[in-house]
Amino acid sequence: MQRAAGLVRRGRCLQAAGPWSRSQSSVAAEASAVLKVRPERSPRERILTLESMNPQVKAVEYAVRGPIVLKAGEIELELQRGIKKPFTEVIRANIGDAHAMGQQPITFLRQVMALCTYPDLLDSPSFPEDAKKRARRILQACGGNSLGAYSASQGVSCIREDVAAYITRRDGGVPADPDNIYLTTGASDGISTILKILVSGGGKSRTGVMIPIPQYPLYSAVISELDAIQVNYYLDEDNCWALNVNELRRAVREAKNHCDPKVLCIINPGNPTGQVQSRKCIEDVIHFAWEEKLFLMADEVYQDNVYSPDCRFHSFKKVLYEMGPEYSNNVELASFHSTSKGYMGECGYRGGYMEVINLHPEIKGQLVKLLSVRLCPPVSGQAAMDILVKPPVPGEESFQQFSREKESVLGNLAKKAKLTEDLFNQVPGIHCNPLQGAMYAFPRIFIPDKAVEAAQVHKMAPDMFYCMKLLEETGICVVPGSGFGQREGTYHFRMTILPPVEKLKTVLQKVKDFHMKFLEKYA
Amino acid sequence: MQRAAGLVRRGRCLQAAGPWSRSQSSVAAEASAVLKVRPERSPRERILTLESMNPQVKAVEYAVRGPIVLKAGEIELELQRGIKKPFTEVIRANIGDAHAMGQQPITFLRQVMALCTYPDLLDSPSFPEDAKKRARRILQACGGNSLGAYSASQGVSCIREDVAAYITRRDGGVPADPDNIYLTTGASDGISTILKILVSGGGKSRTGVMIPIPQYPLYSAVISELDAIQVNYYLDEDNCWALNVNELRRAVREAKNHCDPKVLCIINPGNPTGQVQSRKCIEDVIHFAWEEKLFLMADEVYQDNVYSPDCRFHSFKKVLYEMGPEYSNNVELASFHSTSKGYMGECGYRGGYMEVINLHPEIKGQLVKLLSVRLCPPVSGQAAMDILVKPPVPGEESFQQFSREKESVLGNLAKKAKLTEDLFNQVPGIHCNPLQGAMYAFPRIFIPDKAVEAAQVHKMAPDMFYCMKLLEETGICVVPGSGFGQREGTYHFRMTILPPVEKLKTVLQKVKDFHMKFLEKYA
Repeated sequence: MQRAAGLVRRGRCLQAAGPWSRSQSSVAAEASAVLKVRPERSPRERILTLESMNPQVKAVEYAVRGPIVLKAGEIELELQRGIKKPFTEVIRANIGDAHAMGQQPITFLRQVMALCTYPDLLDSPSFPEDAKKRARRILQACGGNSLGAYSASQGVSCIREDVAAYITRRDGGVPADPDNIYLTTGASDGISTILKILVSGGGKSRTGVMIPIPQYPLYSAVISELDAIQVNYYLDEDNCWALNVNELRRAVREAKNHCDPKVLCIINPGNPTGQVQSRKCIEDVIHFAWEEKLFLMADEVYQDNVYSPDCRFHSFKKVLYEMGPEYSNNVELASFHSTSKGYMGECGYRGGYMEVINLHPEIKGQLVKLLSVRLCPPVSGQAAMDILVKPPVPGEESFQQFSREKESVLGNLAKKAKLTEDLFNQVPGIHCNPLQGAMYAFPRIFIPDKAVEAAQVHKMAPDMFYCMKLLEETGICVVPGSGFGQREGTYHFRMTILPPVEKLKTVLQKVKDFHMKFLEKYA
Repeated sequence: MQRAAGLVRRGRCLQAAGPWSRSQSSVAAEASAVLKVRPERSPRERILTLESMNPQVKAVEYAVRGPIVLKAGEIELELQRGIKKPFTEVIRANIGDAHAMGQQPITFLRQVMALCTYPDLLDSPSFPEDAKKRARRILQACGGNSLGAYSASQGVSCIREDVAAYITRRDGGVPADPDNIYLTTGASDGISTILKILVSGGGKSRTGVMIPIPQYPLYSAVISELDAIQVNYYLDEDNCWALNVNELRRAVREAKNHCDPKVLCIINPGNPTGQVQSRKCIEDVIHFAWEEKLFLMADEVYQDNVYSPDCRFHSFKKVLYEMGPEYSNNVELASFHSTSKGYMGECGYRGGYMEVINLHPEIKGQLVKLLSVRLCPPVSGQAAMDILVKPPVPGEESFQQFSREKESVLGNLAKKAKLTEDLFNQVPGIHCNPLQGAMYAFPRIFIPDKAVEAAQVHKMAPDMFYCMKLLEETGICVVPGSGFGQREGTYHFRMTILPPVEKLKTVLQKVKDFHMKFLEKYA
C-alpha cells in the first residue's frame, strides 16, 4: 500500500507539461526572438530597484574597484578594438595584485599545491621530497585525503597548529593556541565576520567602529553594510602617517555623543599609507584600548612587507603580552593575516587566518556557528596558508631556492619603495611620505583651483578628476585619495609599487610628465 | 629640507620601547606563565559577550554543523584516546561531503587544476593534451597567467562564457548571457549576496522571504543575519514532498499581515527532502511569482542528481522562457549552482555561479560593487567550475575515462537512493518518501510519548534526543529534522546516501536495529 502510493506519487513527475509548454526548437527560436525583438510593451516595474534595495548595501563604496577601474576596463577594450590612444596598454596600479604585475609564484608553494591537487604526482621524480612530505601531511588532515572535502569550519586542524607555531616563532616565544586560530577566505572575510559579531544597539547606542583615515575601504564598506557607525581618526601626514593617541582620544570623545564606540581598527603596516608603527605607538594604542574598553582589530596583512631599514614589524599580540597580565588577560584582540600579500602574493587562492585573544568562550562558539553557515574557507587557500606559515627550513631540499625567490621579491619591493618615494618627491606639487612598508605609495598632490572647478563641472571629486585624466592620457590606473578618506582640502592617490623596476620607472616618469602638464593646464 | 624632514620622521621608528617593554626571554617566560597561572584577580568584563553581541547573529542556527556534529567530534577524540564504544568509528552522514565519504575526484578536473596550479607540468608527457589545452585557456584568462592573481569580481570572463554556453545547452537552446553570470564562493555565497541586496524596510514593510519547510538551514540563517522575515511554506510530505501552490498562496496571504513578502526561494531537487519538481509545478510557481510580484531564487545545486526514472530536472530559467515574453521579460530570477554536489563533489574548492534574469541594470552595478568588496571568488574554485560546465566531449582524449567516472558516481548514487528508500520503509515507525534526487534521505520517524518526555527532561527537541542516542550508540551522525523545520508534532532526520554501498547497507541496518530498540525502550 505504502509502496503503491509511493509509485503513484512518483507517477506525477510524468505529468504532461502545462498550457505554456512548447516544442524545444520553437522555444529556442522564440527565446532568442525574445532577447532580440523589443517586447510590445515595456517590462513591468522591477521588484528589485535602487529605490527598493537594501539601503545599507546601496551606501557601500569600494574605490579600489570603483568607477576608475570600470573606465580602465573600457579603455582596454577600445585598445583591443584598435582604437588609437596616446599609450598601448593600461597599467593597473590600482590594486595590490602581485602576480598580475608579473611577480612569479613561489615554486615550493605551487609544487605542494599541485601535489595536493593531483596526488598521482606524489610518485613523480620531478617533485622534491620535502614538497611531497608537506603535501602528504596536508592531505592526511583532509576528509578522504582530498582538497575537495569540506574542512572544519574553523579550518584544517594541522594547518591551524602550523599557524600557531608560526605566530609563536614570530613573536619570540609568546605562545599561540591553535584553538584561537580561525582560517578565513582572505583577510577580508575574517575582518567582516568579526565586525558582524560586534555590531549591535540602536540610536545613540549603535556600535561605533574607529578606523584610520586614510583607510582601506573594506572597513567603510562593511561598516555601511552592517549599518554601524564609522568613527574616523586621522593619521598624521606631516609625521610620516604616524598614529597619534591624542587623535584617538579626540575621535572617541566626539563619537560618544552619537554612538557607542566599541571597536578600534588598526592597519599596520598601513594601507594605503605605508607607515610602520613603532613599538611605543603600539603600546600607547593598546593602553588606550584598555582604558576605553575597545575591542582591538589589528590588520597585519603586510607584516612581511617592511622596507625601511629603521623600521621593524611588531605584532599587537606580542606587544600586548609584553605589557603584562593586566593587559594580556583583559584586552580583546583579533589579528588578521593573508596569503595575498607578503612575498607570495597568492591573492587568487583567498587564503587567510585570524587569531583571537581573550575572546569570551561563548563568543568563540558563536563565531564557529557563524562560520559554519558558509561551511568552510577554500581548502586550497588553507593549504597555501600552510606554506606561508611553514616555509622550507635550512637543511630541507627546497630551502635554498625558496630563500632566493623570497629575497628577490622582498629586495625588489624595497628598491621600488625607495625609488617611488624619491621620484615623487622630485616633482613640484607632489609630496610622498617614506614607504616604510606595505606595497603602495599614497602621495599628496597639489590640485590647482581651476582644476577643482573643472572637476565640479564634471561632478567629480577633484582627485577623481585628476586620476581619470591620468588614466585617459597615460593608461595608468590609480585610485583617488577620496576613496580612502583624507583631510578636507587635501588630495592624494594610491599607486602600487608592484610593476617590475624598469616598468615602474616608466610609470613614475609618465605620472611626473602628466602632473607637470596638469599644473600648466590649470594654472 | 623635505628629505631631511623625511629622515627625521623615519628616525622616530627607532624610538626606544616604552615602560612596559622587557627582554624577549623574560617575555616568553612570563607570557607562558600568564597562560598557566590564574591571574591574581578574575579578568575584567569582556566587551564582546552574548549580551552585547549582534542579536541577529546570536539568533542564527545551523543544524548541519550544530551540536550533534560537535558531539561527533568529541566521540572521535574519545575513540582516538582508546575509550571503548559499541562502535569503532563515527560515520558522518550529516553533510553532503562526497570526497570525505570516499568518492574519488574526477581525474580530468584534477589534472586541469594541477596544470593550472603548477604550469611547469604543461611540458610533462604524463598529462593528456585536452587537459593541457583546457589549462592553457584558463591561465590565459588569468592576470599574469596565474591562479594567484585576483580575477574580476564577477569572475574570470572566459569561465563565465563557458557557464553561459553550458546553460544554453542544458536548456535546449534558451540563450544565456555571460553578463548575467556571476561566479561565487560556493552557492551559499551567491544566495546570501542576493538576499543581502533584497532585504529592506522596517516594521510591517520589512522584507519577507518565503522558504520551503523543510528547508536547507542556510536560508533561515541568512534571513536571521539580515533581520528579514522568514515566511514558511510547507512541502506536502503525503505527496512525495511536492510543492503545492495553494500552500504558497496561504503563506503569502498570512505573511502580508506582518511583512512585505518580496522573495520566493525554491530548492529543486529538494534539500533535505529529495523531491524533483514536475514541469507543471514549476510553471505554477513561476505564474504565482509573476502574480504576486515575487523575486524568484532557484537553488538548483542538485541539478545533476536526479535518480528516479520518472523524473527529469527542469531549470526555472528554461520553463520561464517557454512560458513566453510576458513571463520571460518580467519575472526576476536568480538561479544557483555549485561544484560541491553533482558527480564532482568538489566541496573544498568553494566553486559556484549564479545566473540572474531580468535584473535591473542599476542593480547589476550594485551587485558588482558589493562583490568587489570581497575582491573575487577563489580562482581555483572558478577553474573547477569551468570543468563542471565544460567537460570533455566525444573525440577528446579524456572523454571515455571522464564518462566512466561520471556514470559510476551517478549510477551508485541512484542505487543507494533506492536502497535507502526501500530499507527505511521496511522499518516499522519509519516512513521514507522516494529519493527522486539530491543526496539525502529525510525519513519520518515515530517517536513514542515516553521518549518525547525523556527529551523534555534533557531540554532537547525529541528528534535531537533521538539523533544523539543514535550517535552515542552506533556512531552514526545524522541531523534532526528540527534543524530543517517540519510540521508540528512530526519528527525526521536527514542522512546522506554518500557512504559506499556496502557501508551504507551496514549504516541502514544499524539505524534499523537502533530504531527497534528505541521503540521497545520507550514503549
